[in-house]
Amino acid sequence: MADEKKLTPRDQDYSAWYNEVVQRAELADYAPVRGCMVVRPYGTALWENVQQGLDRRFKETGHQNALFPLLIPMSFLQKEAQHVEGFSPELAVVTHGGGKELEEPLVVRPTSETVIGYMYAKWIRSYRDLPVLINQWGNVVRWEMRTRLFLRTAEFYWQEGHTAHATFEEAQEETIRMLNVYADFAINDAAMPVITGRKSETEKFAGADASYSIEAMMGNRWALQAGTSHNLGQNFAKAFDIQYLDQNNELQYCWTTSWGVSTRMVGGIIMVHGDDQGLKLPPVLAPYQVVVVPIWRKEGQKGMVLEATERIRAELATRFRVTVDDREEHTPGWKFNEWELRGVPLRIEIGPRDVEKGSVVFARRDVPGREGKSFVPMAGLANAVGDMLETIQADMLAAAAAYRDANIHQAVDYEHLKAVVADAWARAYWCGDLACEAQIKDDTKATNRNIPLDQAGAGPGVCVVCGKPAEEWSYWARAY
Amino acid sequence: MADEKKLTPRDQDYSAWYNEVVQRAELADYAPVRGCMVVRPYGTALWENVQQGLDRRFKETGHQNALFPLLIPMSFLQKEAQHVEGFSPELAVVTHGGGKELEEPLVVRPTSETVIGYMYAKWIRSYRDLPVLINQWGNVVRWEMRTRLFLRTAEFYWQEGHTAHATFEEAQEETIRMLNVYADFAINDAAMPVITGRKSETEKFAGADASYSIEAMMGNRWALQAGTSHNLGQNFAKAFDIQYLDQNNELQYCWTTSWGVSTRMVGGIIMVHGDDQGLKLPPVLAPYQVVVVPIWRKEGQKGMVLEATERIRAELATRFRVTVDDREEHTPGWKFNEWELRGVPLRIEIGPRDVEKGSVVFARRDVPGREGKSFVPMAGLANAVGDMLETIQADMLAAAAAYRDANIHQAVDYEHLKAVVADAWARAYWCGDLACEAQIKDDTKATNRNIPLDQAGAGPGVCVVCGKPAEEWSYWARAY
Repeated sequence: MADEKKLTPRDQDYSAWYNEVVQRAELADYAPVRGCMVVRPYGTALWENVQQGLDRRFKETGHQNALFPLLIPMSFLQKEAQHVEGFSPELAVVTHGGGKELEEPLVVRPTSETVIGYMYAKWIRSYRDLPVLINQWGNVVRWEMRTRLFLRTAEFYWQEGHTAHATFEEAQEETIRMLNVYADFAINDAAMPVITGRKSETEKFAGADASYSIEAMMGNRWALQAGTSHNLGQNFAKAFDIQYLDQNNELQYCWTTSWGVSTRMVGGIIMVHGDDQGLKLPPVLAPYQVVVVPIWRKEGQKGMVLEATERIRAELATRFRVTVDDREEHTPGWKFNEWELRGVPLRIEIGPRDVEKGSVVFARRDVPGREGKSFVPMAGLANAVGDMLETIQADMLAAAAAYRDANIHQAVDYEHLKAVVADAWARAYWCGDLACEAQIKDDTKATNRNIPLDQAGAGPGVCVVCGKPAEEWSYWARAY
Repeated sequence: MADEKKLTPRDQDYSAWYNEVVQRAELADYAPVRGCMVVRPYGTALWENVQQGLDRRFKETGHQNALFPLLIPMSFLQKEAQHVEGFSPELAVVTHGGGKELEEPLVVRPTSETVIGYMYAKWIRSYRDLPVLINQWGNVVRWEMRTRLFLRTAEFYWQEGHTAHATFEEAQEETIRMLNVYADFAINDAAMPVITGRKSETEKFAGADASYSIEAMMGNRWALQAGTSHNLGQNFAKAFDIQYLDQNNELQYCWTTSWGVSTRMVGGIIMVHGDDQGLKLPPVLAPYQVVVVPIWRKEGQKGMVLEATERIRAELATRFRVTVDDREEHTPGWKFNEWELRGVPLRIEIGPRDVEKGSVVFARRDVPGREGKSFVPMAGLANAVGDMLETIQADMLAAAAAYRDANIHQAVDYEHLKAVVADAWARAYWCGDLACEAQIKDDTKATNRNIPLDQAGAGPGVCVVCGKPAEEWSYWARAY
């Protein structure tokens, strides 16, 4: 239940605002285990809609789901040198099972490249078995020191795609295909404009040849990496002997990829769209797309209003996710605040006058106050709701894109970059030198978000730090 | 890939048959971690269909999904005396996290009553918050000594419902409601006739006041407990202080339930329906309901046959889960065996003659040989497929029920019971004494499966062991 207290305004303390929204909208709560969360029914319904949007796209691009074990022998992680280095500080380790100390400790998976690589080596025999296109939905554990609900938790939920191919080119195609699948989901389902690009060497996945990400701008102008896709080259294939006989009957190593989106995406949705009233959910993903609030003052009006409400609910429920708030212990004003806090895209108010006139009131979550209200006839209501939800979805994307574009600035020199990244994103030429990247981070706390695939407008330039020749732009920002 | 070798016949070695079917149909494989499994794409697709059938029923009965943490403080399990006694021998324990030894060990959840109880105590304040009706889909770990793919694995996948109520009566209603939801799913989706009943004191869940189960008969006449529903009384409410203020503003303990179905259900589906050719999947759950096999001998026929195949596939794909096997490296006969092994309910064969005549051949998986084949006109094919799948579903349920009923015998005395349970199920009066139950188990290895809710035909009788008065029948059988 929402209490009556207002949320901390975003301008005052963004982090406090975020934590309050997550808990008071009943998306998630802290678990009694360090750094872990409980995803409550409302948050789970949102995550399930994210899952469905992604899963449908994975299947359309030829992938199948499978389930690999939670526990992985410690020795598996040690087979890929960069991988173990990247993950060992974060491992949760099972040392006892069935009352006895284990001969070999098992790690709770932080990611599954190793154990999936082991199984692929067993399953893949010939070029006819390729490509292998598998995705897994599950939970992973990383012993993070500083945690935040959805954004960084010790246990989190995600999908991890793992594919094996005959050639580098096919693996690279897959890596980019899935990056684009993520972008398509983020833009069209989450109304979250994202920038696709390559991660710098410093920021890439432990064990990848190349990593790619989708990056989104949050309401405080920080960046969030909302999905990653990795070309793993032959690193895991060599570590786990994933080999196939080619058409000439010669043994070759496979080329593998992995790609993932997690419950972090939910944190992104909260921060891209939320305002001082609370959540603002895109209609495609909202657990409830419509809330109907019946309003009456006199007991004699109640029957008529509730009857019309039920008629409307039944009509809309066949096409939309609808809830009715007819609780009598709360006032309409309390309910409006509550459902705004919870981010329901469209509220339908219906009172005795509306019933008499055969109309209802629409109130858009994304347009505050009078401007977001309109009278709509009850006749043809479902179509009007459908149109309105489409409008809201499109307007939310447009608003987020406008906000982002207004807060990205081309840095003309290093002083400018430093000023820009204090409160926005900089786009700047970078020579690729790790020292220049490290200097930016040391001076500003901003990191290289990615080197965008879209370099239209870029050309020969000079590195914003060292002045040496540079060909490509990068995005730089503070990030979660 | 299936190899050409035949499966071990069920009569010869049921256990070998089971393991071969699971692996050769590519449902699951052994993981490189003791007692764990990898659920392969075909097995995962089957499990996802099980999940959807259950999840829809949970939502129709007012439940919502949520996600609770994987890791549980060891002290939580110790709060409920029977619970910790039941589960401690099976725990996997995390002792190290982030490179350090933990102050308190964490167990990988074997089930979540404790941590969910802790959260409910935090969330529930008043009678207005009740009932709480939550389900969780996830993985759990129990350090089992003897494991078998799907039936008993150290890690398994399941759903666990956890509800809290104001009164005993409501909790009991919920317990039985969910038992009946499981039975409805088993019967109508899995074509698996089940018997609903109460578990004996010996067989009930550690921490429950009363446990109920659905029990199914496998192809070797052993029993499988395919789902359980528990009335937990106030045991966990008292252990975790789950209290609410009632309408008189007095503090009361809640009454809680839990209920679960796991990937064991997949093992049950394999064993209820499978035959010496392999899997036999019920149409409602089969990953592929229809496989279309194009057949041609001469290169000149190929185009015509493949064109008709594609037309059929496109027509059927809008209503059914269809796959086409047009691989050229395998003969039609090999493909028939392969898809029979994998249990696809309906095979459609199409050759040059069929194209000319405007018809196809249907081959039912559940009716072997000539009798299961029929010629069907291409016109109106989708309706014919729909009708045939319904017939197959109904016939599979009827066949399983007939098999079960033929293998349940009313035991007239103890000698008879011993003879019956050697190879079938006995129904017998039992006085309720633990000593009588233990004696049956010692003498025969058969256990009390359940005390059926349906006692029609039972009345005052005498215990099959001790001869004392008994009111109720129980089922007795060897069980997984």
